[in-house]
Amino acid sequence: MVEFRFEVKARDAAGRIGKLTVNGKTVETPVIMPVINPKHLIVTPRELKEMGFGMLITNSYIIYKTPELRERALEIGVHRLLEYDGIIEVDSGSFQLMRYGGVDVTSSEIVNFQHDIGVDIGTFLDIPTPPDAPREKAEEDLRITLERAREVEGIKEIAMNAAVQGSTYPDLRTYAAKKLGEMNFEVHPIGAVVPLMENYRYRDLVDIVIASKLGLRPDRPVHLFGAGHPMIFSMAVAMGVDLFDSASYALYAKDDRYMTPEGTKRLEELEYFPCSCPVCSRYTPQELREMPREERTRLLALHNLWVIRGELNRVKGAVKEGTLWELVDERARSHPKMFAAYKRLLEYVEYLEKNEPVTKASAFFKVSEEALRWPLARRAKERAERVRRKFPETIEHPIFGEIPKYLGLSYPFAQSEGEEDFSIKKPSREEARNYIMAIAEYQFGEGAGDAFKDAFIELSRKTGMPRQIKAKGKHLATFRAEDGLLTLGIEGARRLHALLPFPRMRVAVNGDAEPFARHGKNVFAKFVVDADPKIRPYDEVLVVNERGELLATGQTLLSGEELGAFQTGLAVKVRRGVEGK
Amino acid sequence: MVEFRFEVKARDAAGRIGKLTVNGKTVETPVIMPVINPKHLIVTPRELKEMGFGMLITNSYIIYKTPELRERALEIGVHRLLEYDGIIEVDSGSFQLMRYGGVDVTSSEIVNFQHDIGVDIGTFLDIPTPPDAPREKAEEDLRITLERAREVEGIKEIAMNAAVQGSTYPDLRTYAAKKLGEMNFEVHPIGAVVPLMENYRYRDLVDIVIASKLGLRPDRPVHLFGAGHPMIFSMAVAMGVDLFDSASYALYAKDDRYMTPEGTKRLEELEYFPCSCPVCSRYTPQELREMPREERTRLLALHNLWVIRGELNRVKGAVKEGTLWELVDERARSHPKMFAAYKRLLEYVEYLEKNEPVTKASAFFKVSEEALRWPLARRAKERAERVRRKFPETIEHPIFGEIPKYLGLSYPFAQSEGEEDFSIKKPSREEARNYIMAIAEYQFGEGAGDAFKDAFIELSRKTGMPRQIKAKGKHLATFRAEDGLLTLGIEGARRLHALLPFPRMRVAVNGDAEPFARHGKNVFAKFVVDADPKIRPYDEVLVVNERGELLATGQTLLSGEELGAFQTGLAVKVRRGVEGK
Repeated sequence: MVEFRFEVKARDAAGRIGKLTVNGKTVETPVIMPVINPKHLIVTPRELKEMGFGMLITNSYIIYKTPELRERALEIGVHRLLEYDGIIEVDSGSFQLMRYGGVDVTSSEIVNFQHDIGVDIGTFLDIPTPPDAPREKAEEDLRITLERAREVEGIKEIAMNAAVQGSTYPDLRTYAAKKLGEMNFEVHPIGAVVPLMENYRYRDLVDIVIASKLGLRPDRPVHLFGAGHPMIFSMAVAMGVDLFDSASYALYAKDDRYMTPEGTKRLEELEYFPCSCPVCSRYTPQELREMPREERTRLLALHNLWVIRGELNRVKGAVKEGTLWELVDERARSHPKMFAAYKRLLEYVEYLEKNEPVTKASAFFKVSEEALRWPLARRAKERAERVRRKFPETIEHPIFGEIPKYLGLSYPFAQSEGEEDFSIKKPSREEARNYIMAIAEYQFGEGAGDAFKDAFIELSRKTGMPRQIKAKGKHLATFRAEDGLLTLGIEGARRLHALLPFPRMRVAVNGDAEPFARHGKNVFAKFVVDADPKIRPYDEVLVVNERGELLATGQTLLSGEELGAFQTGLAVKVRRGVEGK
Repeated sequence: MVEFRFEVKARDAAGRIGKLTVNGKTVETPVIMPVINPKHLIVTPRELKEMGFGMLITNSYIIYKTPELRERALEIGVHRLLEYDGIIEVDSGSFQLMRYGGVDVTSSEIVNFQHDIGVDIGTFLDIPTPPDAPREKAEEDLRITLERAREVEGIKEIAMNAAVQGSTYPDLRTYAAKKLGEMNFEVHPIGAVVPLMENYRYRDLVDIVIASKLGLRPDRPVHLFGAGHPMIFSMAVAMGVDLFDSASYALYAKDDRYMTPEGTKRLEELEYFPCSCPVCSRYTPQELREMPREERTRLLALHNLWVIRGELNRVKGAVKEGTLWELVDERARSHPKMFAAYKRLLEYVEYLEKNEPVTKASAFFKVSEEALRWPLARRAKERAERVRRKFPETIEHPIFGEIPKYLGLSYPFAQSEGEEDFSIKKPSREEARNYIMAIAEYQFGEGAGDAFKDAFIELSRKTGMPRQIKAKGKHLATFRAEDGLLTLGIEGARRLHALLPFPRMRVAVNGDAEPFARHGKNVFAKFVVDADPKIRPYDEVLVVNERGELLATGQTLLSGEELGAFQTGLAVKVRRGVEGK
């Protein structure tokens, strides 16, 4: 029985913070797995664990091919072999296949061996087709990969990777991703991208990752195989990558190369360490250069690991804060090819919009001209255009240009910062209702404003801003001071439910969840049977039963598409049930 | 006798790496001085020294006003008082004047006290006029400051600061800078800018720093008073700031604020430390939050110091590599107001061009659209336009557009990377001379190409690129593989000396230096009597005597203006003298 869970905890851009549990061991994603060469440990797995690396990857093929390692792994298991109690994922020899042209083991042999040594996440022998391969070769390789996937699907008893291949053909990547998504696998690596990264072909990398993500199920974690340079983390996470691995921390170290979030430096060219990790705060580049080779390699490997850890923490922090695009924008300046990749990524308008939260903990920062092409900026302008047809009065916004006057309090218009300062005009008592109706149109869709046409809006004495929204003595909604959007009360939800055609705003749950939702309890993903595909992360939604009757209202962390796919974790944080909290 | 030396060692943008020596103690600039409150040490001066802070700043007014500190400082000196053997600079109470409206000491009293306690760099009691003060007040304050400067100038026997004031009036700043530059001072702080930084008015800060720099002598180090946030370092150094100070490492720590190169975070909002300094690699934010206040403050202060040190190292590394603009561009994305400041800075075309090196160790990276407005890109296009009038044949460059074909091997055209790859066409044997002539026009100015019109160009067998340039059996110049520019031989220098009108390319030295230069020895700044104001850093120049006769050729680290101002350090790295090396 496979014990494997993946649930989303927070998100920004198309990236997410997740909780990944395998065999009782949990890590938070995005996570990076240092690659361990079991024949040559520069940093021990135990040290990695102490540095906070809760998951590592090693190569089952190397263990399999090395008699003394194989015997011992079969005897005591891979965890005791490596003296590591975190999550151990293994590769299968696929990389060796790509680099050296062949391996002498079959896919099922290596998978069986992975079972026998007790790995947490296995990998079958997929065929990594390198970039720019002839179409026929890419197709034939993929045919074999999918065949092997079906073969291993039947015998597997552990969590397993199924790598998306397809060389540099986006349609093949999407096809492979769809096919593998229909099968019984837990994790999807995106394979054979190392040659792209080695050649700074980040723009092609973006095409491949997005093509793969478009085919993959949103509820499975995605691993960008061989990506371990901190330069790439922010952009990869923004695309929806959850797992990384790094052999480079050690390979670079052996070659006297020093990682930074902006690129790699040669130790010989460094006069100062632009870092304060335990290595760099203790030694100067000169001191490191003068050390015996082995000691130097180990210290450089440790530095590289610290940088990797630091940058991944920075990315995770940005997801939590809702500032991931700002970080991507900043890091895009580290290399012209990263800048090119960033601009390419912004062309994937539809994919990005689908995953983009409707609200964030942080203001919109216009830190570049490209920022106006971020999905949240595009969406805001599009939705504002729609609202303007109903509320034609406009104001001039220093970042977004002409916007409907009554959206002037709402995210991102009010919660934004550009080159010039601007002040927010507070609503007059007479206009307060127009504000709320316009916000409802903006937030919930065309026609939603009508739910508030008889509303009375309380203005805060302290701030002059709207607070509670009522009608006929009943509470419809609350105006949120932090983002100028609405949280629904149950009466507001009833009105929208009556007004807006199915399936708009709906998350349908099965009978098991119904009584809980009615009483204001949270809805979990496994009870969701259907959802409006137009729902976006952090939207306020209407929870309904399978007959479409309103049960509750609340906020979802997931998009409509994800609500249909996820089987684990929270789906709707319910605020009010029809039968009370 | 004041022992004070400042010399430039390397440079990029308008920034420089310098060597600052005071009373036998040396630090490399840009440098940051942690501010020490002698009444309350969160981190001891000894620890600061161990972390690599070779210079600190404390407040002589606080020592003066605290009887037990005053007695002890007078008795054992400020170095022993603080147990610190690095460079100690002191403020005078000016800050207290700005913040609290008055101090009860006169300028000469505090300066005398500074002498008595043995500070390395003193400060008189200038009047810091805050931003947006009425013009009359700013003028009156400045009048007093200049009066006090003149007063202290007569009595001072130590190195001293003379702060540039003038509120937010750029013309007053320039005026103050010029006046103070004519007096006998060693360091020029730019004062009263803290309120601008506190309010994210980075654009105004740029105006003030540039206005001050325009008036200041280039040979004195400039201190941006009160600037200690890592966010600002790259841009400030790019403007030509050499010294920083930070009280904020401790003030922020007391307030549970955590510095990053992209801004300040509150400890309470951090889930992860985006840093691997000795503090952040050891504790989690949660652990820090749970600590007793005093311990937490100390650890946060240490983290803040490590971040400051790390970012300053990064900036220094960028200057050495010639990638400072890339770093400025990246850091400009940390806040919309930084982005605004960056765009403002790029408007100071003339100031920036004057200081911009003609060649760099690194390729030009187009990491943004703004990169095309960097001074080196503007200059390259302007000079290319000039060359095109003589060599009208063009090629299409993916970054720079149409450029003269014969500049296709030279910096930054060949040494650049953009979104699209391009290949460099090697010169045919027939066209090689045209390349060299075009490069000479580009590098040395109009008419310089004629010096090579009978040249024979050796092409490297290995690379196909030009190498030695000769005529009539004599060596004129060498084509540099790394940047496609020319290094002159003495015969090439003779020809340019004959061709180009005075003062083009000339650095005139006095009789003391003449025999050394003739024999190929380096020229030091103190022997320079005059220089072509059009010389730019890293230009190849002609060293002449006061009668204008050619003595040598070599490369200068300084601009023409700086060659006239500096009295310390190397002026021209001589490659060949007329009487041999």
